[in-house]
Amino acid sequence: MTPGIHAVGLVLRQPTRLLGLEAFSMQLIAGIEESISAEGRSLLLHIVGSLDAELATYRRWAEQHQVEAVVLHNLTVDDPRLDALAALGVPAVVVGGPSRDLPVANVFVDNAAEAHEAVDHLVALGHRRLARVTGPHDLAHTRTRTDAFVERCAALGVDGTVVEGDYGEASGAAATRDLLARDPRPTAIVFDNDVMAVAALDVAREAGLRVPADLSLLAWDDSPLARHAAPPLSAMAFDVHALGVQVGDCVLNVVAAGPVRSYTVPPAHLVTRSSTAPAPSS
Amino acid sequence: MTPGIHAVGLVLRQPTRLLGLEAFSMQLIAGIEESISAEGRSLLLHIVGSLDAELATYRRWAEQHQVEAVVLHNLTVDDPRLDALAALGVPAVVVGGPSRDLPVANVFVDNAAEAHEAVDHLVALGHRRLARVTGPHDLAHTRTRTDAFVERCAALGVDGTVVEGDYGEASGAAATRDLLARDPRPTAIVFDNDVMAVAALDVAREAGLRVPADLSLLAWDDSPLARHAAPPLSAMAFDVHALGVQVGDCVLNVVAAGPVRSYTVPPAHLVTRSSTAPAPSS
Repeated sequence: MTPGIHAVGLVLRQPTRLLGLEAFSMQLIAGIEESISAEGRSLLLHIVGSLDAELATYRRWAEQHQVEAVVLHNLTVDDPRLDALAALGVPAVVVGGPSRDLPVANVFVDNAAEAHEAVDHLVALGHRRLARVTGPHDLAHTRTRTDAFVERCAALGVDGTVVEGDYGEASGAAATRDLLARDPRPTAIVFDNDVMAVAALDVAREAGLRVPADLSLLAWDDSPLARHAAPPLSAMAFDVHALGVQVGDCVLNVVAAGPVRSYTVPPAHLVTRSSTAPAPSS
Repeated sequence: MTPGIHAVGLVLRQPTRLLGLEAFSMQLIAGIEESISAEGRSLLLHIVGSLDAELATYRRWAEQHQVEAVVLHNLTVDDPRLDALAALGVPAVVVGGPSRDLPVANVFVDNAAEAHEAVDHLVALGHRRLARVTGPHDLAHTRTRTDAFVERCAALGVDGTVVEGDYGEASGAAATRDLLARDPRPTAIVFDNDVMAVAALDVAREAGLRVPADLSLLAWDDSPLARHAAPPLSAMAFDVHALGVQVGDCVLNVVAAGPVRSYTVPPAHLVTRSSTAPAPSS
């Protein structure tokens, strides 16, 4: 342990008012904390609005010796943070990076396998026109899920449409309106988080469509929001808290022993509720 | 500014798996961050399971000069943390303490006024048997709300029953079952958070009661969960993010200028949705 430093850094880059709408961030933080607090460490948390501000935070933390390591979340394609942190000499652990062979420790989540499971479930229910509403497309795990979704739909001979969202309610509603205006419209939509999926419930209702008789909806990220929606949402359930604990464990290993190899955590599993059903006969 | 220290400490004391279920904590954190990050500070976050662990964290932070000040949340009656921090010489800012005259800076929320507004709304709708499901009763703001609820019900000549909960879904469901088993049962229930209130929706449904025709429900803390419940929940809406910004501003004042007086922030305001309606004729 570096003398005098007992903190692990985490920068969240997103509009601060979006935080707290998704359960994901807080559950991840709580899991990381559960692990690192057992060794007397705290989490140094910073929320920024831009990549520049995030990189400036790492420089400041490095100059002032404020952290032993940082956790990187929402890796982008060709993420510049990896090189920046390497140049600063700050060890990093990536949460859910796109592959097992990153230059830094990575807690790997098999997003492609999850996307396959979602598609397979809907196709087994008879759906032939599927759609996916994504998170920001520059995120590596979004890209992974989209590629897997498109490939699986193609392999199974069904339509697979993709619309980009940003995780917020408004974008979920707008993407759903866009999809429902198409002719023919999809009979099943998969969303990259719970917030966008519940927003779609309202849009479907306004459009006079019954969920799930006319339209099946499936969310990533299980949560009270998904469970208490009307109807309750089928969801790709992932133990985010357990992921956080793994990330914390990985950080402790990196701090104690230097570079470590990737962990692989169990992927999400599908929890079926009332929002997915056999496709309407067309 | 203490040379070399650019962090503000926040300890959350609750079972880590409960975090992320409520939107409150993350919104508060995001607001605090928005304020303090403008001066280059980060939030040092620690999640603990007990008061002893929390006090040990403050001792460690003080010994290692890790924080300039700490934010205290969920003040209890005769909270021992105030004396402990004073003895350690760590400045503190309290979030939503019970009065304006604490020995440390306090961002005051008028919980009594909020409780009065909730009672007045329901009584105006004709309800005469009200109930309140609380958070943990050792919390000072819980006590304030309960006292105000009981007093206002008495002043208006209506029944005001109180059952203790712990903010979790299970306790919200159990408290609701308890209340609905009474004869006569309450016609309106006010909950101390959104999670317990949505759990009550399920219990009411199982009991064959229609919300709001047979039973009105009102939640503290507005959230996507409250908005997307079926029916959508009337709620005491509070801008938690803005509260967090005020707390951050208060911390910056304390760090720059020493002890400051209490702030008062606007109380929550009632947002009526479909879960509250005139009392059933009995």
